[in-house]
Amino acid sequence: MSGIENRLAAMGLALPAPLALPAHVVLPFPFVNIRGDTAYISGHGPQNDDGSVSAPFGRVGETISLEEGRLLARKTALSILASLKRELGDLDRVREWRRVFGMVNCAPGFTQTPAVINGFSELILELYGPERGRHARSAIGVAALPFNIAVEIEAEAAISA
Amino acid sequence: MSGIENRLAAMGLALPAPLALPAHVVLPFPFVNIRGDTAYISGHGPQNDDGSVSAPFGRVGETISLEEGRLLARKTALSILASLKRELGDLDRVREWRRVFGMVNCAPGFTQTPAVINGFSELILELYGPERGRHARSAIGVAALPFNIAVEIEAEAAISA
Amino acid sequence: MSGIENRLAAMGLALPAPLALPAHVVLPFPFVNIRGDTAYISGHGPQNDDGSVSAPFGRVGETISLEEGRLLARKTALSILASLKRELGDLDRVREWRRVFGMVNCAPGFTQTPAVINGFSELILELYGPERGRHARSAIGVAALPFNIAVEIEAEAAISA
Repeated sequence: MSGIENRLAAMGLALPAPLALPAHVVLPFPFVNIRGDTAYISGHGPQNDDGSVSAPFGRVGETISLEEGRLLARKTALSILASLKRELGDLDRVREWRRVFGMVNCAPGFTQTPAVINGFSELILELYGPERGRHARSAIGVAALPFNIAVEIEAEAAISA
Repeated sequence: MSGIENRLAAMGLALPAPLALPAHVVLPFPFVNIRGDTAYISGHGPQNDDGSVSAPFGRVGETISLEEGRLLARKTALSILASLKRELGDLDRVREWRRVFGMVNCAPGFTQTPAVINGFSELILELYGPERGRHARSAIGVAALPFNIAVEIEAEAAISA
Repeated sequence: MSGIENRLAAMGLALPAPLALPAHVVLPFPFVNIRGDTAYISGHGPQNDDGSVSAPFGRVGETISLEEGRLLARKTALSILASLKRELGDLDRVREWRRVFGMVNCAPGFTQTPAVINGFSELILELYGPERGRHARSAIGVAALPFNIAVEIEAEAAISA
């Protein structure tokens, strides 16, 4: 097992199965697009272990608490790691993180979007360490997300051959 | 004529004229910024053949139907291809697509943003095929877009010399 | 002093001190992430000279005028330049700008997001000139921003060694 996957196992974390889409939904793009040494990572949301889209649904700061939002962002990190694992075979091939764009489904005026997306950043930093895991980041509130998920995150990372 | 442009012609599709801006609007940036082997593509919206911004205006899921939204995303693909053609001379110089960021002007809680942006992705895949056309993607709902357009898309692609 | 910093001084512009965060806020990411020859620039907002987050807070088109919004975007450019200066030592090391993503905290249906973000673009172009300063851009309206700031901008630029 790779170093990153050992660390995930030691933390008791499992990666979800491939996204199980609701009926009639077509997503004509890969979850990770490898071009040269770059992994362009599509917008991901939180998933359950069986790959289904994870509740709770709706807006952070309304029906979803800040702490729930942070856990959904952490789950979204696991969704992204699962996609990277399927695409790359080994999570150690993620050489370094470059940028992360975090989107929170929230009520107008909700001001704690960074605290929500920290659930993602903290897990990536714990797994990859401060040098490889370091990433530029924005964390904003959006009007709507697919399937009414509460958090969506896209990213870019450098990979090794 | 290039391969991609032949395909457009065979599909009966025309590229719009350069964006005809409303009076007093200044956009101090290029629609495509070429740096090295990369085309950084600014946010584009749907245009009519004469270059004017395309109606309908407003929010998908309110005054604009899902199917209208999808057609506006398809028109936005043509706007982007028109900008790339003007910048590169030949659409075959778009070597491969990397990432696409789709923004839908919609009511809070609208959940079908991916189906809207599929209008873009499906045309790019039809023109460039599954290998060159493949792109990472996010599709989100936003509070507002310039000129009250319903769809805006930015992207990044690799180009050849 | 570098060429860019001379120009800033000649324009009477000062760069703000490092961001002074509100209590209890943790941002586990760098404001600029250098990877190879690229500066990935995190979402920044307007700051006062002392580094505190700059008022006015809220939504452009409601409590904040278009002209105030434009000035906040200009201040955001100074925040980003301050982060780049701290990271690179010399603003002349920003070789060329690639892409800019501008987010405006605004009421649904606000249509002048480009005019707001022009406050950023115009300053970058004035400092770096049309060739190095040229950038692809999107300017959208979002539902919420951290700390209820009115404008947030992320970007990517190429740097020299």
